[in-house]
Amino acid sequence: MKKALSFDIGGTKIYYTVIDENGEVISEIKKESTPKTLEGILEILKNGISENKDVDAIAIATAGTVNNENTGVNGSTGNLPEGYHTIDFQSLSDKKVYLENDANAAAWAEHIIGSSKGCQNSVMLTLGTGVGGGIILNNKLYKGKSGGAGEMHFKMYPDKRRKCTCGSYDCFEAYASGTGLKWTAEEISGNKEITTYDVIDGLKVGCPEMTKIFNTWQNHIIQGIIGLANIFDPDCFVLSGSMAQFVDVQKIEEVVNEEIVTSPTSVRLGSAGNYSGMIGAALLAIESIGE
Amino acid sequence: MKKALSFDIGGTKIYYTVIDENGEVISEIKKESTPKTLEGILEILKNGISENKDVDAIAIATAGTVNNENTGVNGSTGNLPEGYHTIDFQSLSDKKVYLENDANAAAWAEHIIGSSKGCQNSVMLTLGTGVGGGIILNNKLYKGKSGGAGEMHFKMYPDKRRKCTCGSYDCFEAYASGTGLKWTAEEISGNKEITTYDVIDGLKVGCPEMTKIFNTWQNHIIQGIIGLANIFDPDCFVLSGSMAQFVDVQKIEEVVNEEIVTSPTSVRLGSAGNYSGMIGAALLAIESIGE
Repeated sequence: MKKALSFDIGGTKIYYTVIDENGEVISEIKKESTPKTLEGILEILKNGISENKDVDAIAIATAGTVNNENTGVNGSTGNLPEGYHTIDFQSLSDKKVYLENDANAAAWAEHIIGSSKGCQNSVMLTLGTGVGGGIILNNKLYKGKSGGAGEMHFKMYPDKRRKCTCGSYDCFEAYASGTGLKWTAEEISGNKEITTYDVIDGLKVGCPEMTKIFNTWQNHIIQGIIGLANIFDPDCFVLSGSMAQFVDVQKIEEVVNEEIVTSPTSVRLGSAGNYSGMIGAALLAIESIGE
Repeated sequence: MKKALSFDIGGTKIYYTVIDENGEVISEIKKESTPKTLEGILEILKNGISENKDVDAIAIATAGTVNNENTGVNGSTGNLPEGYHTIDFQSLSDKKVYLENDANAAAWAEHIIGSSKGCQNSVMLTLGTGVGGGIILNNKLYKGKSGGAGEMHFKMYPDKRRKCTCGSYDCFEAYASGTGLKWTAEEISGNKEITTYDVIDGLKVGCPEMTKIFNTWQNHIIQGIIGLANIFDPDCFVLSGSMAQFVDVQKIEEVVNEEIVTSPTSVRLGSAGNYSGMIGAALLAIESIGE
C-alpha cells in the first residue's frame, strides 16, 4: 500500500503525518508553530522528511494559490513569510513533492473519503476565520487557468461596505466567515467588544438579539450558496471548518432548494475531519505518482 | 463537409438555417414568430426539416435548461407553451436531433469560432432583456448535474430588493440585464416612464443623471464579473447580447483586474454574431455524430 508524508502549512501552525492511499492517518500527527522565516519553514519540512523515509511521495497542503503544476505557490501568501513562493519544494526530496491549496485538498478528501463521495460535481466551503473554497467538477479538482479557482470572493453587496482581507469589498468571505459573524454582531448590537462566542452562547439560550445576529450571518451563507447552486448546478455542497458546526444545514438546504432555478441540490457537513487538508493532499500526491 | 439544420427557439422568435462544420451559415435564415401552441412549434420544426433534407444532423438552440442527454428541456420554460418539455424532438427526424440551451450554444460558438477561441476556461454573459450564461471549462461546455449550470442568478444583495424573473430576489440578471438598467433608471430618476433608450441617449450626450444611472448599471456588471473571476479563474469573459454594445469593455477589464485575487483575466465582446446560438448548436450537433 502506497503512502505519503503529508504537511499542512497554515499561517499559524504546521502539521505533518504519514497517510496511506486509503486516506488513513498511519503515524502520529506532529504540530509546530509556523516560523516567521523561510529558513524556519524549510527546517520543519527537512526534519519531517528525514524522520519519514519510508514513504512514496511528499504531499503539502498549503495556504495560498498553488500553481497548476503543483510545484509551488503563486505570489505572496497572507501570513506566510515573504519569499514563500520562491521555495523550490521539489529540491527537498528525491521523491515526488506535490502541493495543493489547503481548501482544494480538503475538498478532494471530502470527494474521495468524505461527505461528497459519489458526487460528480460539488462545492466545498470551509467556514473558519476566513472562507475557503474547493470545487470538484466532473470528478476532478477545478483549478482554473493559474490554479486560483474556488476563491469565495464574490460580492454580497455591490456598494463597498466591508473591506475584505483580499483588499476588495463585501466578498462572501467578509460575511460568511467567523470574522464576518463578528462584524455582523458589531453592526447589529453596536458593541465593538462582542465576540462570536457571545453570539453562539446567546443563540443556545434563545436570546432574541443573538438569534437575530446569527440568522443574519446564516442568511448571508444561504444567499451565497443560492448563487453557487445556480452557477454550478452541483450534486452537493459540503460545509466544513470551525464555524460549520453552528449552522443549521437542513434549514440551509431547504431554503436554497426553494430559491434556485436548477434542480435540487444537497447541503452537508464535511466528514473528512480536521486533517482533511493533509489527507486530500496525500491522496492527490499518491495519485500523481501513478502505479 | 458536414452540415446541420439549426433552429433557435426563443420566447418571441424562431429562426432556422443550415450551418456547416466550420460554423458558416450556408442557407437563407428563416424567421417566424414563436407560436403560442406546441402544435405550432412542431409545425415550424417539421416544415424546416422537410425543406432541408440534405443535412447530417438537426440542431436546436432553445430557451430553457437542456438535459445532459441533449434530447429535451427540463420542466417548464418561461415564454414557451406549456408542455414544451414533453416534446420528443428526436421523433421529428431519422437524423440525430441535438438540443442545447441557447446561451450555452452561443458560448460554444464563441469558443470555437469567436472571441474566446483558444481560451481553455471562459465565461460568457449575454446581456439582453435578461442575462444568459455559458461556461466553458477545460475546453468543454460545463453543464452540471442536470444541465442547468451557468444560470446567472447569483445575488447582488442578500436582503430582497428586486424580484427577479426566476422568482427569487436580487439576482445578477435583475441588475445586469436591460430590464435591470430600466429598474436602476427608475430608482435613481424616480420616473417610472424612463426607458433604457433614454439612458443610452443621455449617456451619449453626457447628461450627468443618465451617466450616473448607466455607471450604476455597469458597476453591477463589474461586481458580478469580479465574483465570477475569483470563482473560475478563467482565461476570459465574453460579453454578448443586445446590451453588450453599450458597455465599456476596457474599463470593465481594468476594474476587474484591480479587484480580483486570481491572476488577470480578459474581458471581450462576443464576435460570433447574432446567430451564435444556432452556430454553436450546429457545431455541437455535428461533433456529436462524430466521423
